[in-house]
Amino acid sequence: MRGEMILIGDELISGRIGDTNARYAASALWALDLGFSAVQMVGDDPHDIANALNLAKRADYVIVSGGLGSTEDDITNKCAAGFFGLELCEHPQKIEQLHELAIKRRRPLSEAHRRMAMMPKGAAVLDKICAGWFYEDSEARPWFFLPGVPFEFTRMIDERVLPYLTSRFVGKLVGNRYLSVFGLTEANVGRRIEGLAAAIPGAGIGYYPVFPEEKLVITVRADNEEQLRERLDQMEREICQRLGEHVVVRGPGTLEESVGKMLEQRQLTLAVAESCSGGRVGARLSGVPGASGYFERGFITYSNQSKIDLLAVDAAIIEKDGAVSEACARAMALGARRAAGTDIALAITGIAGPTGGSEEKPVGTVFTALAAAQGVVVEKSWYMGGRDWVQTASAEGALNLLRRYLHGGLSLS
Amino acid sequence: MRGEMILIGDELISGRIGDTNARYAASALWALDLGFSAVQMVGDDPHDIANALNLAKRADYVIVSGGLGSTEDDITNKCAAGFFGLELCEHPQKIEQLHELAIKRRRPLSEAHRRMAMMPKGAAVLDKICAGWFYEDSEARPWFFLPGVPFEFTRMIDERVLPYLTSRFVGKLVGNRYLSVFGLTEANVGRRIEGLAAAIPGAGIGYYPVFPEEKLVITVRADNEEQLRERLDQMEREICQRLGEHVVVRGPGTLEESVGKMLEQRQLTLAVAESCSGGRVGARLSGVPGASGYFERGFITYSNQSKIDLLAVDAAIIEKDGAVSEACARAMALGARRAAGTDIALAITGIAGPTGGSEEKPVGTVFTALAAAQGVVVEKSWYMGGRDWVQTASAEGALNLLRRYLHGGLSLS
Repeated sequence: MRGEMILIGDELISGRIGDTNARYAASALWALDLGFSAVQMVGDDPHDIANALNLAKRADYVIVSGGLGSTEDDITNKCAAGFFGLELCEHPQKIEQLHELAIKRRRPLSEAHRRMAMMPKGAAVLDKICAGWFYEDSEARPWFFLPGVPFEFTRMIDERVLPYLTSRFVGKLVGNRYLSVFGLTEANVGRRIEGLAAAIPGAGIGYYPVFPEEKLVITVRADNEEQLRERLDQMEREICQRLGEHVVVRGPGTLEESVGKMLEQRQLTLAVAESCSGGRVGARLSGVPGASGYFERGFITYSNQSKIDLLAVDAAIIEKDGAVSEACARAMALGARRAAGTDIALAITGIAGPTGGSEEKPVGTVFTALAAAQGVVVEKSWYMGGRDWVQTASAEGALNLLRRYLHGGLSLS
Repeated sequence: MRGEMILIGDELISGRIGDTNARYAASALWALDLGFSAVQMVGDDPHDIANALNLAKRADYVIVSGGLGSTEDDITNKCAAGFFGLELCEHPQKIEQLHELAIKRRRPLSEAHRRMAMMPKGAAVLDKICAGWFYEDSEARPWFFLPGVPFEFTRMIDERVLPYLTSRFVGKLVGNRYLSVFGLTEANVGRRIEGLAAAIPGAGIGYYPVFPEEKLVITVRADNEEQLRERLDQMEREICQRLGEHVVVRGPGTLEESVGKMLEQRQLTLAVAESCSGGRVGARLSGVPGASGYFERGFITYSNQSKIDLLAVDAAIIEKDGAVSEACARAMALGARRAAGTDIALAITGIAGPTGGSEEKPVGTVFTALAAAQGVVVEKSWYMGGRDWVQTASAEGALNLLRRYLHGGLSLS
């Protein structure tokens, strides 16, 4: 079993944009154990495209991305028609879809758009909206020609390619679940969930690091919908049990979206006081549409004086324990909550480096505090890596503290 | 003239990590017009690696990345030795370098590290520190085998590959300059600098969008160092003239690094008041080591009440003009400067969307203000794109306002 992919486009081969499509497809195909083993990238050159298509005949299935658009340099369809020995003609179903879209958008169907319907005779249209087609060659090898635009490409992979390949080569239904993990190395995650996928026939777990998180994609195959849901539930439950509080999101969303939703539902308001994270928690919270419903304000208290001015941190605490200390984090959270008048306040203070560390408090030492009506809780963490990593991880750690509080998993005093 | 690249590694072909090396090399090679035209990506499989090497013989030069490390799955050297018909043996120069490194790091030379010196007989070591070698095959075709670690790979491209290829295939010296551009579409940049590269023999301009900036890489060839510097100076000067205030950084650094350096040198302090950018300016400023020397504090005044509380914005302004207005931005900057006691204050207020826009102030409308001893200046911008893009661009716009002020290009009143 062998799968290959061909990426087409001058914008890729010239480095003007970076590929994300091959990575997305590879991750999904590896999770399904579908033998994905080579990628070729070429520019908008008919000779190079023909060579790449020809070479891909060593594979059992081929995914091609790019060059399906409406501009002059989109030549994939023409090259493919030549390669398969098929006539290039207007596809009746596609031209009808394009007409419908044009009416919906109240725009005339341009010549350029009309060109998108020129497909090799015998190709099957994959989608109503986006470009893309399917063809089975004389050796029954499936070829998928997909648009290069990432959000269209990924949708076609999820909705068309994976179901087809699993049903044909695996003969099963396939489903996914997504988890975001924080605070464990990839190796450690691997050890903790070792053997889990093997216990369920046809299951797989894909890894996809998006610093500071490790994204897990659970893939399961089943004979029917009920079995599929059961197996997905079982896998998700088992992984969550083994990884515990390190699972920060269940589902495809972000941590800030999930805490935001909880705050919104319970009508709670939030303030943040950030020292070493420098605004990263605020930036993440404010990135969620509707954040103004719960995110009241943030204090980027970078200097000692600003901690005293804005959060009423006792100068004696900074003097005695230092600005990076449990006592200071506690005072910051309590002060932020009081100053902002919110239900909850988060505070972060730490040593991002590269300088400022000591034997007792090395670079990467971070204190995170949460204050609410019931009291306050402070946690000490140590994050490895350079300045950027420590700052990014400290923001994630604070959002995770908030998540654990909202889930009732923290005792405040 | 044709160049190709081979990326090797299970971590790539499984989608566990995304490639950045091919993109970097491609961008540089296209700027030099060195005929870069294909990339192959394969896993740690001897058969696939051999096939990829064999196919690459259609090229005039080949760059291979990955699989040079010290673990069992690093098999590139072994595969290459087999492919070229060379003996795999310990390279005397490399083993000496490894010994020296081990002494410097006060660690014994492990068996695993020793394996990194096993190279095809006749290969030339490329660097003292990182792995990598060069080989010219029987058809005088140059092969570069480089480490997959991006910071090592990019250094080897800049220091070894580009000089070699230009001297061999172009017969010239080659040099680069870097510019960051903000506030123009790629197409607009292209139109403005059209024909510039063509005016200097062997010059090229590469594009590399890193939202919200467009990075330009100027590449110039010359016969000697003096001519090289002259041509680079001329190109840089011309581009800066044509793009004007849109060039936000000259050099390879970031905008926050460059404004940080200016603040540090002039011993000026800064506060920021962020509404729609939600902490993004603070996050960028604080990401620069030593930022505590000039970045005093930030106010993430997300709610109207926080603008009144922390920045003493008159409630009547918010009532009459709205929180997204020239008057509010002005009051925020003045209030932040007063509250923080800094030399300079920046303020940002805008409509990030997706909701909240109006006919008069559509989504993407942003007011940015700067206050200093001489007075205050406010600018209105409109940024296109989704919420994330508007927020990211508004932070860049504020840092750019600060840059223009520090360069003396703004009149405050």
